[in-house]
Amino acid sequence: YVDQIRLHALALTNLAINTEIMIGQPNYFATGLGAVVDMSITSPTLTETPGWLFPFSRFFSTLPERRPPVAALEDYSEIGDCWCAAHSTDAPGQAQLGIQLGFPIFPKQITIEHIPMKVVPFRDVRSAPKNVELWAYNGLSHAQGSSVMKCKHEDMPAGWVCLGSVRYDIWGSNNMQTFDLDVETPSPIKRAIVRVTENWGANGTCIYRVRLHGRSDGVDVLTQ
Amino acid sequence: YVDQIRLHALALTNLAINTEIMIGQPNYFATGLGAVVDMSITSPTLTETPGWLFPFSRFFSTLPERRPPVAALEDYSEIGDCWCAAHSTDAPGQAQLGIQLGFPIFPKQITIEHIPMKVVPFRDVRSAPKNVELWAYNGLSHAQGSSVMKCKHEDMPAGWVCLGSVRYDIWGSNNMQTFDLDVETPSPIKRAIVRVTENWGANGTCIYRVRLHGRSDGVDVLTQ
Amino acid sequence: YVDQIRLHALALTNLAINTEIMIGQPNYFATGLGAVVDMSITSPTLTETPGWLFPFSRFFSTLPERRPPVAALEDYSEIGDCWCAAHSTDAPGQAQLGIQLGFPIFPKQITIEHIPMKVVPFRDVRSAPKNVELWAYNGLSHAQGSSVMKCKHEDMPAGWVCLGSVRYDIWGSNNMQTFDLDVETPSPIKRAIVRVTENWGANGTCIYRVRLHGRSDGVDVLTQ
Ligand SMILES: [K+]
Ligand SMILES: [K+]
Ligand SMILES: [K+]
Repeated sequence: YVDQIRLHALALTNLAINTEIMIGQPNYFATGLGAVVDMSITSPTLTETPGWLFPFSRFFSTLPERRPPVAALEDYSEIGDCWCAAHSTDAPGQAQLGIQLGFPIFPKQITIEHIPMKVVPFRDVRSAPKNVELWAYNGLSHAQGSSVMKCKHEDMPAGWVCLGSVRYDIWGSNNMQTFDLDVETPSPIKRAIVRVTENWGANGTCIYRVRLHGRSDGVDVLTQ
Repeated sequence: YVDQIRLHALALTNLAINTEIMIGQPNYFATGLGAVVDMSITSPTLTETPGWLFPFSRFFSTLPERRPPVAALEDYSEIGDCWCAAHSTDAPGQAQLGIQLGFPIFPKQITIEHIPMKVVPFRDVRSAPKNVELWAYNGLSHAQGSSVMKCKHEDMPAGWVCLGSVRYDIWGSNNMQTFDLDVETPSPIKRAIVRVTENWGANGTCIYRVRLHGRSDGVDVLTQ
Repeated sequence: YVDQIRLHALALTNLAINTEIMIGQPNYFATGLGAVVDMSITSPTLTETPGWLFPFSRFFSTLPERRPPVAALEDYSEIGDCWCAAHSTDAPGQAQLGIQLGFPIFPKQITIEHIPMKVVPFRDVRSAPKNVELWAYNGLSHAQGSSVMKCKHEDMPAGWVCLGSVRYDIWGSNNMQTFDLDVETPSPIKRAIVRVTENWGANGTCIYRVRLHGRSDGVDVLTQ
């Protein structure tokens, strides 16, 4: 019974924290703010049995429908309301999502969400992101852009800088996790890449939602 | 004012409880886990004025659209986001929903939801389920399957067993109610029937949402 | 840290209040209760860059899609899940939404919602309603209908009475605001107009959601 009270308190605390994340600041990856997926720099979508259903897919007669990459920018309420990238044969667990913002901002934080482990059969959230990098396009050559050293640089074309490398924890009490970025851009950016460089062990990677927070190049239009 | 504080506390407690039901364990009736409606064993959908609008339907010029049975497996946020079964002339208030699961499980609990009474004009939730049975297909003959005696057996074909008979209470403080089942199946099941044998007084029966909880035939793939 | 606790408490209080508004009484503007938009007395929908994106629209390459007036009667979860009326050249900031109810009621309260200011870049919610009037059709001539004097009467045809004039506060801690109406109708009404006579400074006006509460002409069908 005491455990139940603790669980209730935790649920309420998470509800409050998540409410704050959701309504505490703008999400520049919101499609309502003009953000769109840039398919030219986005991984192909998984077409087989999705990653979060691997262990039991042998039983499957009917398969839930596949969702397009924009699902990662939209709300979710159920298991499967996510975007799953196809397995990359050379780099398992990798997934890349390119986003064209509605207007330029200075990125500050990123929020990553996966479905809570408890809701998934066998707690199998191995397709959840583990290491996630945020890249931004500043149009400069590599040498000029300040970039985070812990990011994996090899195959990114010139003009892109890494603003942060974060670790999404599937064991966290809250499935909605916000991270500060390591690097600020000198000028506002309009293109971003969310890159999952490692997941929790599945062949494919699924993203339930990713949000970008930051500062706009302007001042508040309303003052009290 | 004290009443208001009590109401707030109650609302928060229910929010916390419901959060736990929703994210505390998998829902095997979720379409995202491969569950689909088996139309061959599902009641026809109501095509006339729905049950929850009976008392005032005489005024109606425009009617809300009818939803298919799968609505009972999906989320809802408004009045009418439900599936309403047609009145069965021989057994008023009865409704039957057949579900093919995505993969085999051992059922343990069932959650039933109806729209809160306060939101409905004249508090008319007579179309809400009252007695609900959960049946599962185990492929055995009647005699061999352990079944709950309080279920109504007459017209169920061989191979189906009743796992529980529960009472949804429209007067409960929380409209989301979870019940333990009475009987466990010796092997995992893949087909289920939710059977409303009695509602709260309307001619037709509406289901806002039904969830199935249980145990999968396997072990957690992730350990901390 | 103390500020964070205060914010959490506020978030939870608002969650509880909003839960009560949402599930404490019927919303007669719900489409599930048969409410439909009467396009003949509704402002045209904005087709250009929407009001809540004015200050940064110069950057826009892709624009979020326009939503029809019924969006103001439906749920929202993101910025842009609203109906935006076209700017009226003669009366800036005005917007009018006509609603045909599913059945007759005595209006008592109105709830108005806009997206929280914090979620909007530059906090620009100038397109939010400021002064809102609720009008009802009683079929009588002007002289006979009791009407609120502070409403703007000039261009409303005979048979319509003003039941209240309220002020939506974008600075309020809760973005969901419920107001008592000033006048009761002697008989139940079936047609209503929500009229924004002034917004917070934009050329166009957007409504995220409006709800109507009241009393039905009948008694509760269920008693405990
Ligand atoms: K999603
Ligand atoms: K539903
Ligand atoms: K809306």
